[in-house]
Amino acid sequence: MKLKENERIDDLQYKDLKIIQNEKAFCFGIDAVLLSDFAKGVKKESVVVDLCSGTGIVAIMLEAKAEIKKIYAVEIQKEMADMCSRSIALNNQQKKIKVLNEDLKNIESILGKASIDAITVNPPYKKVGSGIVNDTDTKSISRHEILCTLEDIIQVSSSILKVSGSLYMVHRMERLVDVIATMRKYKMEPKRIRFIHPTVSKAPNLFLVEGIKNAKPFLKIDTPIYVYDEEGNNTKTINEIYHIKNER
Amino acid sequence: MKLKENERIDDLQYKDLKIIQNEKAFCFGIDAVLLSDFAKGVKKESVVVDLCSGTGIVAIMLEAKAEIKKIYAVEIQKEMADMCSRSIALNNQQKKIKVLNEDLKNIESILGKASIDAITVNPPYKKVGSGIVNDTDTKSISRHEILCTLEDIIQVSSSILKVSGSLYMVHRMERLVDVIATMRKYKMEPKRIRFIHPTVSKAPNLFLVEGIKNAKPFLKIDTPIYVYDEEGNNTKTINEIYHIKNER
Repeated sequence: MKLKENERIDDLQYKDLKIIQNEKAFCFGIDAVLLSDFAKGVKKESVVVDLCSGTGIVAIMLEAKAEIKKIYAVEIQKEMADMCSRSIALNNQQKKIKVLNEDLKNIESILGKASIDAITVNPPYKKVGSGIVNDTDTKSISRHEILCTLEDIIQVSSSILKVSGSLYMVHRMERLVDVIATMRKYKMEPKRIRFIHPTVSKAPNLFLVEGIKNAKPFLKIDTPIYVYDEEGNNTKTINEIYHIKNER
Repeated sequence: MKLKENERIDDLQYKDLKIIQNEKAFCFGIDAVLLSDFAKGVKKESVVVDLCSGTGIVAIMLEAKAEIKKIYAVEIQKEMADMCSRSIALNNQQKKIKVLNEDLKNIESILGKASIDAITVNPPYKKVGSGIVNDTDTKSISRHEILCTLEDIIQVSSSILKVSGSLYMVHRMERLVDVIATMRKYKMEPKRIRFIHPTVSKAPNLFLVEGIKNAKPFLKIDTPIYVYDEEGNNTKTINEIYHIKNER
């Protein structure tokens, strides 16, 4: 496998999975790993779409964690979709994961309405506004709603999901209101939320949410995830999600 | 002070405040105490409305904690409003707190549109449905949305609040989606949330939210409240809110 400039191969420390990332582009964080764990309860033999797939981290991890029929990894940026394809080849996941280098606003016409069992998405977190140096910069596109908005994502998800299909999303707490209100607007009822706190004494900064198409309102809250303990080490929960054996 | 059948006087353990409660009716819980603490940052000399006031616990505590010009305690149930009036007399709070024994759906005509600085509400938590024995039972009315719904509360609040006025609410986590979506519908943008967990290892079961009329979206999350520690004792945060001196 020949790498392009600034690319490196990272070991995902799970089932020998690898991922190609570009040091100058957006590299995955804990949010993507937590999302793939949150979505692993997806029904067997599901057809899944991973939106805003980037380097494919969520699709790659989820395929290894759950018995899935097919995952479509949708990524609009050509160089990111290309890295994703090569990572999938590196992991021998070509039969299960198919990369779609497409604008998510076009995927309804490709995949069809009400055809998908579940969707995962780790979207750009920030609204377009301050802090963007360059609209065509790949890091800005991964972080800001330049090429798609939260509403685009939820609208497309509601359209391509079957009734009772699940949308699994991770987002920042400051956008909780936007996520909840927009999900309800498109009949993707938020049914389960898990909050992620840096430590026990800090407010949550991220949340995981499962919205179910056309479901009745009633929200279940999972136990919280605390990332670090008081000494700054990973908590047991985090080590379990990362498949790190506790040594003590 | 002569008490009626099944009534008792409880000491609030703060500034000699007392409250009359009826043992057969709904008695206040930790949610009301946390709400009065959450709302104590209200601007000086505010005119405040406490909706679904019940025995007046939130109004009584808030008046003692903040420099408020006037609190209208709105309660539809005659016997509850009557207990509230007598508690206010007992505490010499008559100049500051006025009881309105009214349906909250009528208060816009009494108080006027865009006339109020802040609102507190500890509403009935449950939707009308299973578990109601008797629609006229005072406990059922306090617990279920029989005489007013969440939407009534938020709609009335939005109507009587000034622009940038605050609505402080406590509610159950299972209704988070309803609260957030309905607040946004009536331009009461949720700007601050604080989650309440029974213990560190449990999911939050209650939340406090401040919605601000016509504000721009951006949610701030406060540090969480854990009620009990691992030994089942009150946490330091709870003792501080309850003004209990830590003995250890």
